[in-house]
Amino acid sequence: MSLSQVALNRLDQVFHARSVAILGANDSPERVGYLLLESLLEGGYTGKIYPVHPRHKQLLNCTVYSSLAEIPEKVDLVMIALNQEKTVEAVKECGALGVKGVVCVAGGYKEMGEEGRRLEEALSAAAKEHDLVLIGPNTLGFFNADARLNATFYPETLPPGSGISVISQSGGVGRAALEKLRDEGLGVNKWIGVGNRATLEFSDFVDYLAEDPATSVIAVFIEGTDKGRELMEAARRAAQKKPILIFRTGNSDLAQKSAVTHTGSMIKSPKLFSDACAQYNLIEVKSTNELVCAAKALALMPLPKGEGIGMVTHTAGPSIELLDYLEAAPCRLADFTPQTMAELKTLFKGIPVILKNPLDAAAFGYSPEGYGRVSEVVLADSHVDLLVAIHALHKNWKFATSQLVAIQEKFQKPVLACYISTVAGAKLVRDELQPAGIPCFASIQEAAWGLGAVLRYRRIRTNDFNELLQD
Amino acid sequence: MSLSQVALNRLDQVFHARSVAILGANDSPERVGYLLLESLLEGGYTGKIYPVHPRHKQLLNCTVYSSLAEIPEKVDLVMIALNQEKTVEAVKECGALGVKGVVCVAGGYKEMGEEGRRLEEALSAAAKEHDLVLIGPNTLGFFNADARLNATFYPETLPPGSGISVISQSGGVGRAALEKLRDEGLGVNKWIGVGNRATLEFSDFVDYLAEDPATSVIAVFIEGTDKGRELMEAARRAAQKKPILIFRTGNSDLAQKSAVTHTGSMIKSPKLFSDACAQYNLIEVKSTNELVCAAKALALMPLPKGEGIGMVTHTAGPSIELLDYLEAAPCRLADFTPQTMAELKTLFKGIPVILKNPLDAAAFGYSPEGYGRVSEVVLADSHVDLLVAIHALHKNWKFATSQLVAIQEKFQKPVLACYISTVAGAKLVRDELQPAGIPCFASIQEAAWGLGAVLRYRRIRTNDFNELLQD
Repeated sequence: MSLSQVALNRLDQVFHARSVAILGANDSPERVGYLLLESLLEGGYTGKIYPVHPRHKQLLNCTVYSSLAEIPEKVDLVMIALNQEKTVEAVKECGALGVKGVVCVAGGYKEMGEEGRRLEEALSAAAKEHDLVLIGPNTLGFFNADARLNATFYPETLPPGSGISVISQSGGVGRAALEKLRDEGLGVNKWIGVGNRATLEFSDFVDYLAEDPATSVIAVFIEGTDKGRELMEAARRAAQKKPILIFRTGNSDLAQKSAVTHTGSMIKSPKLFSDACAQYNLIEVKSTNELVCAAKALALMPLPKGEGIGMVTHTAGPSIELLDYLEAAPCRLADFTPQTMAELKTLFKGIPVILKNPLDAAAFGYSPEGYGRVSEVVLADSHVDLLVAIHALHKNWKFATSQLVAIQEKFQKPVLACYISTVAGAKLVRDELQPAGIPCFASIQEAAWGLGAVLRYRRIRTNDFNELLQD
Repeated sequence: MSLSQVALNRLDQVFHARSVAILGANDSPERVGYLLLESLLEGGYTGKIYPVHPRHKQLLNCTVYSSLAEIPEKVDLVMIALNQEKTVEAVKECGALGVKGVVCVAGGYKEMGEEGRRLEEALSAAAKEHDLVLIGPNTLGFFNADARLNATFYPETLPPGSGISVISQSGGVGRAALEKLRDEGLGVNKWIGVGNRATLEFSDFVDYLAEDPATSVIAVFIEGTDKGRELMEAARRAAQKKPILIFRTGNSDLAQKSAVTHTGSMIKSPKLFSDACAQYNLIEVKSTNELVCAAKALALMPLPKGEGIGMVTHTAGPSIELLDYLEAAPCRLADFTPQTMAELKTLFKGIPVILKNPLDAAAFGYSPEGYGRVSEVVLADSHVDLLVAIHALHKNWKFATSQLVAIQEKFQKPVLACYISTVAGAKLVRDELQPAGIPCFASIQEAAWGLGAVLRYRRIRTNDFNELLQD
């Protein structure tokens, strides 16, 4: 069942908290109680900040309060950096004081056996009694870049926003996604470390992000849950509005031997899981890096109208590599129309170039004008719904960036770029391409991950539409 | 049949050419004849440089010669930036003048049909008549970082060397490998764009690099060849001395439809190809990025003595992701000995940490001292042959870099690091770890690619040894 509107609103208020208290704030820069405070400051949070500690007076230039009760207003969010037992008491106090939400960072709950399980039940009971939004326990926290609210213990300048929001069962994997997104020139809108999910399940966060106007792509990392069906159903609802990606680990014997202690169970067989994803319109990916590249393409480019791909390059090999990766994607290599072939023949008169798709323009493609002209002919082709433009960074040749932006606009068909270079090198053209809606990847494999996800989501939306027509 | 010692020496003289002429040198910075000259200068070549052009007098501050014959010495290497017909004449002239080797950049040969095929036969006949080393045609060229000889038309400062040498059928994929290696903090020793392989086959270059003392890892990118058996046999010979990696594209229907025009044929079925790789001791990889990460780990770290893996982390999720990827690799997750368990119990007294492998030290691992201590206990375990150390970049926590270097030295067992961060962030620790023989990757998937290759090569060498014992 979908999360109620009341519950969604409550969650939204926590994601946009106007005041935050930190229980267990302290003065050791390597400890969580310090880092939570530093995160708020470093992230540029503009709401009220209330560090709480019985003895400290000042921390990082903030006035410290000796207790929650001493704070002169009802705070929206309390971050709790206390041990597992004290956290339970603190949640009760938060509930009594009318706090809206809490983040419980401590571990030592159900992942640690019977005693931990009892503690977690107490935690969850306290939250439910007071309708408190509880994130965790055993979590890094969450952030909302729009509100400049970094409620994790990873202090940082939040990267410039994007429509991508991340739900992660692992702090480490969630951080990895963030870092990789940064390498791809993108930030994250909302980032949620679900932790042990004492009260809020994957499905609840999916419901929330599906409704969230600032989120255009939902990326989920999961190890396991005993609420798999709820997740699948929430995903199907979400996928009608926006793409939802999922990466699941823990399938292998090696991992299952190791992971059993800290997550719930889920469908064990990778094949059954993949089938379920397909049935519920989740786009399944196979690595954290693929999750990021898929999210990037989906966040940046519009969906193509059809499945015909045109490719232009000045070096053939990478286009062959890309075709191999696309084998399983719902697309076809467009056959150029006779008109396109005639125009290409004129363009390449006397130059030894093979006129086919992918089109390797060789030296003709070294200049932005030549490359742009060939790309225009290809994108104009009525069989081509999407252009992939491949270029290898070279000291004296420029990529046809402005030409690609112009033809995308002219034909209203999406373009995806692969600029073979280092991550730093890709930035040279990315800052022009990406704001114009052309995702730019530095390697072929990553471009294929992005492109594959866009094509898969197109198929999902098309099938949905066909189903509607049949009703 | 292996390349003769005479032929190997000739090839080596070309890779260490003491003088280079450029036929078709010109003054347009976007054209190949200019770029070849710029590459020599930019790469820091210290031998003699002779640009050749009938009218120019000076190019990039070099004296221009009006013809090859006018050059006052026998040059070792001639780079030919002329069209496909003129290139044939030039090769004949080079042969007559006693040149040792030529690079033929032009396309328009066998990849363009019957007329091109005849031209290529003439090219090859001219080279053979004079025992001339001919690289190409239809190639970017080659470089040798040791000799600071960049004989490609991609001018650049050659990145600092490594033991990795690359043989690529595609300039673009070969460039992609170079760029990715740069992101991984490594350079390339020798880089060879084989082009159409008019006279020199993959197997010849493999034989050469197998003997080359500066090459410790051979990375091959291939689309197709009709000399597949020769390649496989050369690979088997090479693998007795050093790891040889192969990435093959063009398996998919999409790619075969497209690629057929510009490469020879090879085993079509991916399964048969994989079986052949296994049989001939080639390590097969599935992407350019995997090729790079595998080469990196093999180039930097020693082989472990056994297959027992120990893992340490401060965040569990990434270690689970890694275990999934390692499922197919020849390794096992080590069971800690009772002694290790006892030491860990003492170390984590009163801290909620689950004592198992992978070991998630949580907050205890936030400090380099804590992380280093745990790592030492794990690496000391007699069941552990190799340590994987995972850390997520954090503003206030430092990675246990010096500790890892010290324990690797102390126990003489290899360590591989995954420092979850951006590519730029990884540099923070990589520059300390990698020179000490600890490869450091910025993502789990890449770490798994590296680790998997090392484990596979260990198995290859162990099997070889076992076979020897049985003889």
